[in-house]
Amino acid sequence: MKIAVFGTGVVGQTISEKLEQLGHEVTMGTRNVEQALSRTNKDSFGRPAFGEWHSKHPKIKVAAYGDAAAFGEFIVNATNGTGTLPALEQAGKKNLAGKVMLDISNPLDFSKGMPPTLFVCNTDSLGEQIQRTYPELKVVKSLNTMNAYIMVNPSLIPEDHTVFMNGNDADAKSKVKDLLMSFGWKEKNIIDVGDITTARGTEQLLPIWVRLYGSLKNPMFNFKIVVARPD
Amino acid sequence: MKIAVFGTGVVGQTISEKLEQLGHEVTMGTRNVEQALSRTNKDSFGRPAFGEWHSKHPKIKVAAYGDAAAFGEFIVNATNGTGTLPALEQAGKKNLAGKVMLDISNPLDFSKGMPPTLFVCNTDSLGEQIQRTYPELKVVKSLNTMNAYIMVNPSLIPEDHTVFMNGNDADAKSKVKDLLMSFGWKEKNIIDVGDITTARGTEQLLPIWVRLYGSLKNPMFNFKIVVARPD
Repeated sequence: MKIAVFGTGVVGQTISEKLEQLGHEVTMGTRNVEQALSRTNKDSFGRPAFGEWHSKHPKIKVAAYGDAAAFGEFIVNATNGTGTLPALEQAGKKNLAGKVMLDISNPLDFSKGMPPTLFVCNTDSLGEQIQRTYPELKVVKSLNTMNAYIMVNPSLIPEDHTVFMNGNDADAKSKVKDLLMSFGWKEKNIIDVGDITTARGTEQLLPIWVRLYGSLKNPMFNFKIVVARPD
Repeated sequence: MKIAVFGTGVVGQTISEKLEQLGHEVTMGTRNVEQALSRTNKDSFGRPAFGEWHSKHPKIKVAAYGDAAAFGEFIVNATNGTGTLPALEQAGKKNLAGKVMLDISNPLDFSKGMPPTLFVCNTDSLGEQIQRTYPELKVVKSLNTMNAYIMVNPSLIPEDHTVFMNGNDADAKSKVKDLLMSFGWKEKNIIDVGDITTARGTEQLLPIWVRLYGSLKNPMFNFKIVVARPD
C-alpha cells in the first residue's frame, strides 16, 4: 500500500520503518523537507537527528505534507498534537478527502512545563477536531496510548495488552485493525471503543501515562483491560 | 478501627459492608439521616433503597457528616463528586484535621447528559481541591478507577490488575495501602503514582472507563499496567 506518514519524530520514524519492513511504499510528510533533512542535533531523548536516521532508510521518501498526502492511499498522523491541524492544512483538503487516517496524535501542551497538560479534552478531543475539520477524511484514532516501540512491536510486552480504536467509519476501522494485526497485535487485544467522540477517553489516558512514566521510570508499559469472570 | 464512610450510594454501601466484615466500626455519613433512611425508591441501577439496605446491616451506624467525621479515626470519601466539597464542609474542618482520607470520589458531571464529563480536570483535580481546602487532612485518592464490587473484592478478576494511589503524605499512603491489602489487593498491584497532583491522571481515567462500560456492556473490568521485558 502507498502510505503517507505525517511527522518526522520518533513516532513517525518508528511507524515508517515498520511499514517499510512490511513492504509498503512510504512517504513521510513534513513542513519543510530541506530543513527536516538538514537537522543535525540529537533530539531531546538523545536520538540521532532526522537526516541521520533517514540516511539509513533511503527507501523511505520525504516530501512536503501536500505531496505526501497526494501520494498516500492511507495516511498516518504522527505529528505532535500542536502541529496536527497546521500540518493537515498544508496537506490540503482535496489530498485528504475519502482517505483513511490512522491518527496517533495526542493534544499534549508542553508550554506550561512538565508533565504536559492537554490543550483540548473532556468535552472535545483532537481526533474530533480533525474529523470535524475534514469531514471527508475517515479518522481512526489508535496507538496513541503507548510508546512508539510498543506500537509496532506489541510482543515487547510478554502478556496480552490493549490497543484502543475510535472512529466513525466501520470500514476505516477494519482497515486500521488489519494494519494493527500486521504489526503483531492480536485481534482480541484491539478494543473498538466507539465513534470518534470516544477519542476523548483515549486521549485522556495521557495524563496518567506521563505520570506512570515518571513513577515507573520506564516508558515501556501499556494498559490492559482485564474483565471479571462471568457470574 | 473507627471508620467514617461519607456517602450512602453503592460505593459507600459496598465499602461499609466490607469494612464491617473486616471487624471495623463503621459510621456512614450523610447530609440528612432521616431522609436517607426513609428513601424507598430503588436507585437508577435497580438496587434497593438505602433504608432497606441499612436494615440488613444494623451494626453500621448512620449519622450526619459532622458526627460521622468526629467518630472516624479514618475517613472514606465515597460521595458523588459534585457532593464532595459540600459534604466536607458539613463534616467540619476540625473533625477532619490530622486524619487520613481515602478519597474514592470522581468529578463526574452528569448534568450535560451521558456519558458524563468531568467538572474539573487536566490542570486540577477533585483530589487536589479537597487537599487544598483541608490542608490538615491527609488525602489519598485511590480505588476511584473501578466498579465498587471490584474495589473490595479484587479477585473477581482472575488475573492481576492495578489500583492507583495519589497523595502527598507517605504515612497516609501506607495506611491506605494496608487497608487495600486487607481488601485482598496484592502489594505488587498497588501503584503509588505520586503526589496528589497525580490524581489528575487517575481521575481522567473515568472518561475511558465510562466509554468502555458502554462498548464492553459490562462494568466488571479494570485497568492493568503491564510492563515490557527488561532489555
